[in-house]
Amino acid sequence: MKTVKVGIAGAAGYTGCELIRLLAMHPHAEISWLMTGKTNEGKRLHEVFAHLKGVPDRVFQALEPASARDVDLVFLATPHGVAVSIVPEFLKAGCRVVDVSADYRLKDPKVYEEWYQKKHTAPDLLKEAVYGLTELNRSLLPGAQLVANPGCYPTASILALAPLLKEGLAQLDSIVIDAKSGVSGAGRSLNLRTHFSEVTEDLQAYNPAQHRHVPEIEQEVSALAGKKTSVTFVPHLIPMIRGMLATVYCKPTGKVDTKGLESLYEASYGEEPFIDVLTEGELPRTKNVWGTNRSEIAVRYDPRSATILVVAVIDNLVKGASGQAVQNMNVVFELPETSGLESLGLYP
Amino acid sequence: MKTVKVGIAGAAGYTGCELIRLLAMHPHAEISWLMTGKTNEGKRLHEVFAHLKGVPDRVFQALEPASARDVDLVFLATPHGVAVSIVPEFLKAGCRVVDVSADYRLKDPKVYEEWYQKKHTAPDLLKEAVYGLTELNRSLLPGAQLVANPGCYPTASILALAPLLKEGLAQLDSIVIDAKSGVSGAGRSLNLRTHFSEVTEDLQAYNPAQHRHVPEIEQEVSALAGKKTSVTFVPHLIPMIRGMLATVYCKPTGKVDTKGLESLYEASYGEEPFIDVLTEGELPRTKNVWGTNRSEIAVRYDPRSATILVVAVIDNLVKGASGQAVQNMNVVFELPETSGLESLGLYP
Amino acid sequence: MKTVKVGIAGAAGYTGCELIRLLAMHPHAEISWLMTGKTNEGKRLHEVFAHLKGVPDRVFQALEPASARDVDLVFLATPHGVAVSIVPEFLKAGCRVVDVSADYRLKDPKVYEEWYQKKHTAPDLLKEAVYGLTELNRSLLPGAQLVANPGCYPTASILALAPLLKEGLAQLDSIVIDAKSGVSGAGRSLNLRTHFSEVTEDLQAYNPAQHRHVPEIEQEVSALAGKKTSVTFVPHLIPMIRGMLATVYCKPTGKVDTKGLESLYEASYGEEPFIDVLTEGELPRTKNVWGTNRSEIAVRYDPRSATILVVAVIDNLVKGASGQAVQNMNVVFELPETSGLESLGLYP
Amino acid sequence: MKTVKVGIAGAAGYTGCELIRLLAMHPHAEISWLMTGKTNEGKRLHEVFAHLKGVPDRVFQALEPASARDVDLVFLATPHGVAVSIVPEFLKAGCRVVDVSADYRLKDPKVYEEWYQKKHTAPDLLKEAVYGLTELNRSLLPGAQLVANPGCYPTASILALAPLLKEGLAQLDSIVIDAKSGVSGAGRSLNLRTHFSEVTEDLQAYNPAQHRHVPEIEQEVSALAGKKTSVTFVPHLIPMIRGMLATVYCKPTGKVDTKGLESLYEASYGEEPFIDVLTEGELPRTKNVWGTNRSEIAVRYDPRSATILVVAVIDNLVKGASGQAVQNMNVVFELPETSGLESLGLYP
Repeated sequence: MKTVKVGIAGAAGYTGCELIRLLAMHPHAEISWLMTGKTNEGKRLHEVFAHLKGVPDRVFQALEPASARDVDLVFLATPHGVAVSIVPEFLKAGCRVVDVSADYRLKDPKVYEEWYQKKHTAPDLLKEAVYGLTELNRSLLPGAQLVANPGCYPTASILALAPLLKEGLAQLDSIVIDAKSGVSGAGRSLNLRTHFSEVTEDLQAYNPAQHRHVPEIEQEVSALAGKKTSVTFVPHLIPMIRGMLATVYCKPTGKVDTKGLESLYEASYGEEPFIDVLTEGELPRTKNVWGTNRSEIAVRYDPRSATILVVAVIDNLVKGASGQAVQNMNVVFELPETSGLESLGLYP
Repeated sequence: MKTVKVGIAGAAGYTGCELIRLLAMHPHAEISWLMTGKTNEGKRLHEVFAHLKGVPDRVFQALEPASARDVDLVFLATPHGVAVSIVPEFLKAGCRVVDVSADYRLKDPKVYEEWYQKKHTAPDLLKEAVYGLTELNRSLLPGAQLVANPGCYPTASILALAPLLKEGLAQLDSIVIDAKSGVSGAGRSLNLRTHFSEVTEDLQAYNPAQHRHVPEIEQEVSALAGKKTSVTFVPHLIPMIRGMLATVYCKPTGKVDTKGLESLYEASYGEEPFIDVLTEGELPRTKNVWGTNRSEIAVRYDPRSATILVVAVIDNLVKGASGQAVQNMNVVFELPETSGLESLGLYP
Repeated sequence: MKTVKVGIAGAAGYTGCELIRLLAMHPHAEISWLMTGKTNEGKRLHEVFAHLKGVPDRVFQALEPASARDVDLVFLATPHGVAVSIVPEFLKAGCRVVDVSADYRLKDPKVYEEWYQKKHTAPDLLKEAVYGLTELNRSLLPGAQLVANPGCYPTASILALAPLLKEGLAQLDSIVIDAKSGVSGAGRSLNLRTHFSEVTEDLQAYNPAQHRHVPEIEQEVSALAGKKTSVTFVPHLIPMIRGMLATVYCKPTGKVDTKGLESLYEASYGEEPFIDVLTEGELPRTKNVWGTNRSEIAVRYDPRSATILVVAVIDNLVKGASGQAVQNMNVVFELPETSGLESLGLYP
Repeated sequence: MKTVKVGIAGAAGYTGCELIRLLAMHPHAEISWLMTGKTNEGKRLHEVFAHLKGVPDRVFQALEPASARDVDLVFLATPHGVAVSIVPEFLKAGCRVVDVSADYRLKDPKVYEEWYQKKHTAPDLLKEAVYGLTELNRSLLPGAQLVANPGCYPTASILALAPLLKEGLAQLDSIVIDAKSGVSGAGRSLNLRTHFSEVTEDLQAYNPAQHRHVPEIEQEVSALAGKKTSVTFVPHLIPMIRGMLATVYCKPTGKVDTKGLESLYEASYGEEPFIDVLTEGELPRTKNVWGTNRSEIAVRYDPRSATILVVAVIDNLVKGASGQAVQNMNVVFELPETSGLESLGLYP
């Protein structure tokens, strides 16, 4: 089987080093170069990430698309706003791109402008980009030039909702997504909010109904529902490193029960290598998917309040970012979809 | 001012020792005795709780209402099911009772039976008991014989909802309460779910729509709404010791906006010594109320999804249990309501 | 009893806000002003520290000794290096000073220069400053103009060693101090080392034998031993917010046993309001002193390896910083030593 | 290359499931059966350990050596005391055994009796067992019938000390080992000490100089030093799941310096696949070895106190238990030593 040569731009953050970890264990990938911003430029990989001593050392290069050596695919794990302009350069250089940042996820440049307060300079590419929620868009991925890798919150939320939306079982004005994320989702940049003594033994909601993942979720929910839909989305910061849990609530359009909903989810996801539908009273735990590309999902109907509940968990850095990026690479290059994503999760 | 003599039954758990901590600093209370179950009977207070070395040592007695020395008030912090039978004994002995367990919270013995799978043996007392959510039932408390101290989840949830319900602003079939609690809420008894290595770096929903606090919340919500109401309630276990956050969602009955909702909450709670309504974009953090009887509440209207959001935080062991119990004692005995509850919270 | 008017300079860090917390509950102190550096200048107290909403709001002033309104005592909780020059200004203005920073702890300006890489500009004041390890220097404090409040590591280490050193029981070339601190000791300034995802689930030694608390410990150990003494000191960063534990090892000069050592420690500290000597197999836990000015100490002799072990715990922000500063204020002004330091610790 | 068929007895604890995780990813091993005690007997693997859903499900059998199907090697991860009697049964059945419990580590049955308060019933096997600290006893392992897998504390401590002892550089009466362990080392059995709310935000020493790993460390230190040696060993419980750090102190026998000590350690461990000697000011972090079989070690000389310092970290469940067990299996069966142990560690 072929080997895919990859470069990683923005390799010194948490999603960057998670990409390195996964790709270093990938049987059909080879990392050609690592680029990064000013802070870590010129440093050695082992100096910045001692946990990666098991892979050969190398040096972080400056972030310059022009100087990129020949690769088949570039992963962009740069801060939001950076990819807008460098994606076209990498594409021009003949590389495919999986953009792990938010820059190519919103199809409508006006929505991008509204939520990111700046004009998108490559609106044509927005249309071309495949939204890489692999389980939903698998057929669009083989051979894709540009994959917009989903955000962590949208991944968990949409996986939780998709079967209901496809079947028209959810009242579209009733969708509430209460999401909870470990702190690594906020990245490696320093911030008082992610200072140890501030976030440990603390719990808070942030950006309620105003998080930038809202339009991304609504875009995909609308597509699945076949109708423009708004959702209520409130994220919370949880004092743990990794892990994301979305609790989704909606009213049913007709008569449903737990058994039937479970059957629907099992039918939707039964063949998926990375999704486990839990039944018989089992409930998802983020610890069960720690360090893996897996998602656990459970669905219930609460007859007392006539509400459907869905709980989905992922590891925000793997299925919520770097793991799904590798999964997308696999499908783009028609490799086995689970390549490089098979190592078991840590516990306890 | 008078001094209230109190006894604490079930004093060796987390709510028990929090009662001791608060009452030992109370200017108008005096602890006469501590009773406890088999495990700690006969042990010294300092042996079981070294953090209480600042108060005089004493011995935990066996849990025997008959042998209770003369006190004005008994706090019951026993496991659920124990209070049912011993509350009548303490009342007969002439003590007032604040029951921190769940046994006297549900007015309807049939509902108790349904959720606790056993008959309530003192149905008449259920009617008499004052539900001690102090801010709502303050006028019923002075001189009360029996106070049913609210659960932690109901306290946070009802404080979040009360102003909306009183004004008829919430569509009653749309209420979703997504609640998150620190691990101390599960008590001091050993359980794999609260084993350090299991719950650290983990996040899970539990008992979705089936937690025993559901009927308690619904009872009070129905009373406030003036109409039998069901709610969707999903609790989550958060890897931190103390703190509880309830995120509440509902659809408005009419036109609302954030400013108006904030004014309503400020009008409702402006005089309350223990409730802070946050405005101007501020959001509650559990760390802000750590170790205190305070609650922080913020309300928003999300026009995009036409949904009202309320976020409320408390310390589950203080306002969610022992602190509110002391607050209730203060009102029952017409002491200043904040007595013994004024020490500042820890941070960071 | 008189009321001491105090000002706090450097009030927006962790030791600063802990001073505010303690002084706000102090029956004989009154906070006149709060000064701080650029970041928080002009902000309101409640804006920066929402946990202090129980005390009246006020504004952080710029750090300008000249503009200080009339106070009896200034607490300096400024970063190291700032106090050197502003202490003389405050003294000139007629205030007493308790300096919580490291600037006036080392008696010898050459040692200061060696460890802080800059000349001390007020060497005469170094001699005058009383080293405020209250239990050891209590008699020097009443009326003192300048108190150099000890570091957290020196406090725990010296309390652990003092009884041995006074009695000449420790071989002076054998002293090893293995110290462990919660992360709040590193302050509120942002740093990758104190970024949540870096320090959670991590453990490391730092600055082994090179930490700036080494000369401070050696100065006091030498004074107690009556002989210039070097110690081995290795600090470790523990993934918890508050708490410090020092494990001290040394060889005995003669025949000792656990019973005898325990008697010595009980005799040394038996009357101390803030020190508990644990015996009968009990061992210190940082959780037992959380949020309090207390220290727990246990001593053992290991006949197998002929070594004396002492374990001491404190809360690094209280007895290790702000609490001891208040204790020193109490003694300086001849108030009851425990004033403002009596609230019980949080648990669990 | 051959495939080793293995059975795991005591498979439902933390070391048991870590063995399953590692062996399931091992290219040359095949798990034939899992045995366990009463609590989990008859349960499915996926039911007890949802993080292992990536491996085929199977059922935990009762712990009965007689019913063991044909395997080449049995891993014993049973509680201490159980292996004593079942090891001989497995050996008789023709299996090799790697005992991860403590039962066959002490060569002298009297020492076992002294520290475990019971007679060892297979004293002859004690002599035969190879102490599986792979780096030290590699040559004794190929073909061994019984391997006594070292404890976590001894592994970290002895790796830290071995180069000094072999060269005679340490004064043997001066060795202090201050060790710190994550909570998973205490296993999956419930205990108040490992209850989340008790151990989070807490720090304590336990069993100072009396931990059962003392005789194990002393046995190996004595063997390396060529002389009966006692050490001071104090373990501490750290509020994190995985990770162990040993800080070792000793006096040098002659003139040493940091450079020379680093060269010695590099010479000793330079070829070792799982040991990294850190130099140039770098210091070990447990997070760097999380989930891996690696150890990081740094050595320093502190001229001020004339003391050698060594800091070593491991993951207590991998190199400190299950990973080293697999490493030993590899050497016993002459497989590549790193087989099944190459997956990269998680970070952050």
